[in-house]
Amino acid sequence: MKIICTKENLKKGLFVVSRVVGVGNPLQVLNNILLKTDSGRVKLSSTNLEIGINTWIGGKIEEDGAITVPAKLINEYINNLPTEKIVLETKDTNLSIEAENYHTNIKGLSSEDFPLIPQVAEEAFAKIDNKELRDVLSETVWATAVNETQPEISGIFMVFESGLLRVAATDRYRLAERTAVLKEEVQGKKEVIVPARTISELYKILGTGEGLVEIFFSETQVLFKFDETELISRLIDGQYPDYKQIIPKEFKTEAVVDREEFIHALRATSLFAPDSNNISLQVSEQGDITVTASSAAAGENTTKVISKVTGGDSGAIFNFRYLLDCLQNLKEAKISLKLINDASPAMIVPEGRDNYLYIVMPIKV
Amino acid sequence: MKIICTKENLKKGLFVVSRVVGVGNPLQVLNNILLKTDSGRVKLSSTNLEIGINTWIGGKIEEDGAITVPAKLINEYINNLPTEKIVLETKDTNLSIEAENYHTNIKGLSSEDFPLIPQVAEEAFAKIDNKELRDVLSETVWATAVNETQPEISGIFMVFESGLLRVAATDRYRLAERTAVLKEEVQGKKEVIVPARTISELYKILGTGEGLVEIFFSETQVLFKFDETELISRLIDGQYPDYKQIIPKEFKTEAVVDREEFIHALRATSLFAPDSNNISLQVSEQGDITVTASSAAAGENTTKVISKVTGGDSGAIFNFRYLLDCLQNLKEAKISLKLINDASPAMIVPEGRDNYLYIVMPIKV
Repeated sequence: MKIICTKENLKKGLFVVSRVVGVGNPLQVLNNILLKTDSGRVKLSSTNLEIGINTWIGGKIEEDGAITVPAKLINEYINNLPTEKIVLETKDTNLSIEAENYHTNIKGLSSEDFPLIPQVAEEAFAKIDNKELRDVLSETVWATAVNETQPEISGIFMVFESGLLRVAATDRYRLAERTAVLKEEVQGKKEVIVPARTISELYKILGTGEGLVEIFFSETQVLFKFDETELISRLIDGQYPDYKQIIPKEFKTEAVVDREEFIHALRATSLFAPDSNNISLQVSEQGDITVTASSAAAGENTTKVISKVTGGDSGAIFNFRYLLDCLQNLKEAKISLKLINDASPAMIVPEGRDNYLYIVMPIKV
Repeated sequence: MKIICTKENLKKGLFVVSRVVGVGNPLQVLNNILLKTDSGRVKLSSTNLEIGINTWIGGKIEEDGAITVPAKLINEYINNLPTEKIVLETKDTNLSIEAENYHTNIKGLSSEDFPLIPQVAEEAFAKIDNKELRDVLSETVWATAVNETQPEISGIFMVFESGLLRVAATDRYRLAERTAVLKEEVQGKKEVIVPARTISELYKILGTGEGLVEIFFSETQVLFKFDETELISRLIDGQYPDYKQIIPKEFKTEAVVDREEFIHALRATSLFAPDSNNISLQVSEQGDITVTASSAAAGENTTKVISKVTGGDSGAIFNFRYLLDCLQNLKEAKISLKLINDASPAMIVPEGRDNYLYIVMPIKV
């Protein structure tokens, strides 16, 4: 293999594939990135056996071939290079890098030892705007369960039907649900559970890109394709809980409140709930939410947040982290908090948008 | 105690004193900050029993008094507050904070339990420009020994004599020495060893300030005073090594080189010295420094850095971290590297400045 490319292109490609690569994995090849010539371009690949990433960069191919090299080492080396033009050439299982006054041999491993990244369907099942997909993911993925004993809720639930994508995430104490419009109607209905780790990595490499993301499926895999990059992941096998039943049909009290002010009040109060995470919300028809917490060790705090209240007084105790997770991931200036009583689920929705809801269970003390 | 002050003033004061306060120290009062009224201003104090910090902020004193409260809690609380005006009031050993809709009681401890921060001399021994002092510290402190078995070199050596301050730092493998002009001549000669930790904290709270720093001494303490802040520290007891003797009088080879290019070459090459930190420098009269390293696991790198060489070829093996420490803390575009042979100390000096030198021992392999 012999390739001439720019530092910028190589750096960008390495950044995309490096996220899932291990460091210090006893199976050395899993710490490595695969570089390969592919129909006149350079293909970079990485995998952790759950998630695989392929990306293509431009370059002048002087000789076809392939090699794998340690991800950490080549990343640090290329990032530090002050030069623009780079010549990459394999010499047995070494990768030679020549760049003006810089002459390097990096010890690699044969490309034949690199795990095969599976192929999925030839044709995209669904297409969605990149920015819209990022919003869907950032408003839901943090609500998944981190506890691996319930694998079916350790991912997000994605339902494709007609022209819509519906995404849900829950850890059984709270639920986020978001719907989004697809670029075109899909053929038939598809329900999958995608690991939260996959979604986090996908979100990061989607970056600030524009354009479309194409979504492909096989029986057990999903592939997201955008720009010059593919991310392939296993799907989670299992039955997603029938979460719709826990969403109350009606609420008693509604408080419309400035999102940033509410966040400040929750953060201030959270400092006085150092062990339990429990804080009390009391909505008063007088026009405010009183946020309080106290502890023997730290002291106590009470903050009133002005709000527009309808439906009478109500209140409950919540894990403040569950409230902040939602509020910090919305962008709207105002949100609506809906309550029934201190034993029933509460709801947060952004003002003026009906494609998102967040349900959170109160704490019974 | 009852004080009215602005969030900005309180936040700034808390930032300055919080650096040395502990978190989770079993002696609770050492996790706390002392707030005290002092001649119409508010005094904030902290100590870790080695270093003490006092700073004064403006405020309206409605009632004199004092209290100590947990540093972490009050910092987080005040930083999060969206309001401008804050009313602080003691209630027994609680500190009540009132700020618009925010009402808080923080559990504190009596100010009587707070360790006394010692007083030092009434009159300043020396005065130096704030920015000049920062440069002195940033060009030396990292060369001190981290090994506590040699306490006398775990600090920087400061010599005040006539109109000059001379600072040295060494760990016996390298030495940094910097001289600076004082604002006025001092009375008599003073030699002290100041702990590296003190210097690091001092450097950070000096920030980007302007004006003068006044330096006071007692038998065992030093006090740095600037703006509205004092930092007091113990001195290290002991005899500083007679380091002057290791500085060679003459060198054979001199290479003048671009500092940034040299740093890039060292960083690239360091990736191939993963275990030993050893890299080879070979200066050639042809007009370059060849930087090389190789390891069985990673591979090898050779980078040539163009330089203006006089005095013939020379070379040696160095710990690359010792070279980078110096080069990264200088600002000059060009530096001069001076060598004798592969067994003698080498020197780095910035081009066009004669108040700084750095000596580094080669590695014998």
